[in-house]
Amino acid sequence: MEEREISQAVIRRLPRYYRYLGELIEENVERISSNELSGRMQVTASQIRQDLNNFGGFGQQGYGYNVRYLYTEIAKILGLDVNHNMVIIGAGNLGQALANYGSFERRGFIVKGMFDVNPKLAGTVVRGIEIRMMDELQSFMEKNDIDIAVLTIPKTTAFDVASLLVENGVRAIWNFAHTDLKLPENVLVENVHLSESLMRLSYNLSRYNKEHNE
Amino acid sequence: MEEREISQAVIRRLPRYYRYLGELIEENVERISSNELSGRMQVTASQIRQDLNNFGGFGQQGYGYNVRYLYTEIAKILGLDVNHNMVIIGAGNLGQALANYGSFERRGFIVKGMFDVNPKLAGTVVRGIEIRMMDELQSFMEKNDIDIAVLTIPKTTAFDVASLLVENGVRAIWNFAHTDLKLPENVLVENVHLSESLMRLSYNLSRYNKEHNE
Repeated sequence: MEEREISQAVIRRLPRYYRYLGELIEENVERISSNELSGRMQVTASQIRQDLNNFGGFGQQGYGYNVRYLYTEIAKILGLDVNHNMVIIGAGNLGQALANYGSFERRGFIVKGMFDVNPKLAGTVVRGIEIRMMDELQSFMEKNDIDIAVLTIPKTTAFDVASLLVENGVRAIWNFAHTDLKLPENVLVENVHLSESLMRLSYNLSRYNKEHNE
Repeated sequence: MEEREISQAVIRRLPRYYRYLGELIEENVERISSNELSGRMQVTASQIRQDLNNFGGFGQQGYGYNVRYLYTEIAKILGLDVNHNMVIIGAGNLGQALANYGSFERRGFIVKGMFDVNPKLAGTVVRGIEIRMMDELQSFMEKNDIDIAVLTIPKTTAFDVASLLVENGVRAIWNFAHTDLKLPENVLVENVHLSESLMRLSYNLSRYNKEHNE
């Protein structure tokens, strides 16, 4: 497939297309028009056509989209056609919650190891994954080909741990620590700042209350 | 303060300003110029001035911004000057992780109750909050003034539970279930779709690898 520069806005929307197409497959829907998809996703049909045209356009006039083909192609674009080995650093509730999501593994995100500093957690097994102590991290990284590190640790230690991971070959960080990691430019960071999401909800609630004089 | 229509892009950035200003307060910094703030936040100074001008402009020529004043004003805009009572529906690892974040409570987000369907969790106490069974939800909602519901439940039950909450007065939903909730228009929904965030990281990793022929 031809590679074009794709805007981050389109990339942000692609996983949502992928999710809806996955649901259509579960419902045994074989093909769908942009109008039908528009009704489900509450996005305009022209937005859908425009987004999917970025990838060469999978639709055919009068036929619509072949659901499984489109699903597979989007999976490839998202890099879900290859496995990604992950480590989770921080085996508290959040780290364990992420380790427990079987759906990540089905999409090729394989949790190879979990690490923590709390000796009480040493040896605990979550969905077959043993929690190891941080002093084992380096030797573990040398033996396993890890692409992605998930940081579910406090912000105070996040930068040091991230730097150690990068030194040991990690190229992508899924960061739940509430800080912006300033790492070398070739390291990819995707932040999940939960409290910022909650504040957006609070902002919208506050504005709604003001507008309705409550 | 005068109310203006503020773009969602600015709203998305406000919590980040709030976080950096909080860090400056911890460091006892009293005032800061847009240039200094720009260096820390890796955003251009003109972007900072433009964003903050939306709120009437807190800066003064030659002085910069008064850190504590700006922090307090942004808190008000974000609705952090009032308390929000919350319930968490789904007391698995993720629900418990959110209940354990003391930092939410410091910003006025008070977890009043946690609910689950798993009888093994009944009576478990997380940071002083007892896990109750779902059949107690309605009477709990009648006795407590709940603004925000946090959904950390599977997508299959999310819509029914959300509808029940809305019938019982909930006006804002922080949704971690991997589905789009189609609720009445006056209900505010903020989605945290973790797998979509992970897919964006995977996309960027895949694109990086292609560009570098790896």
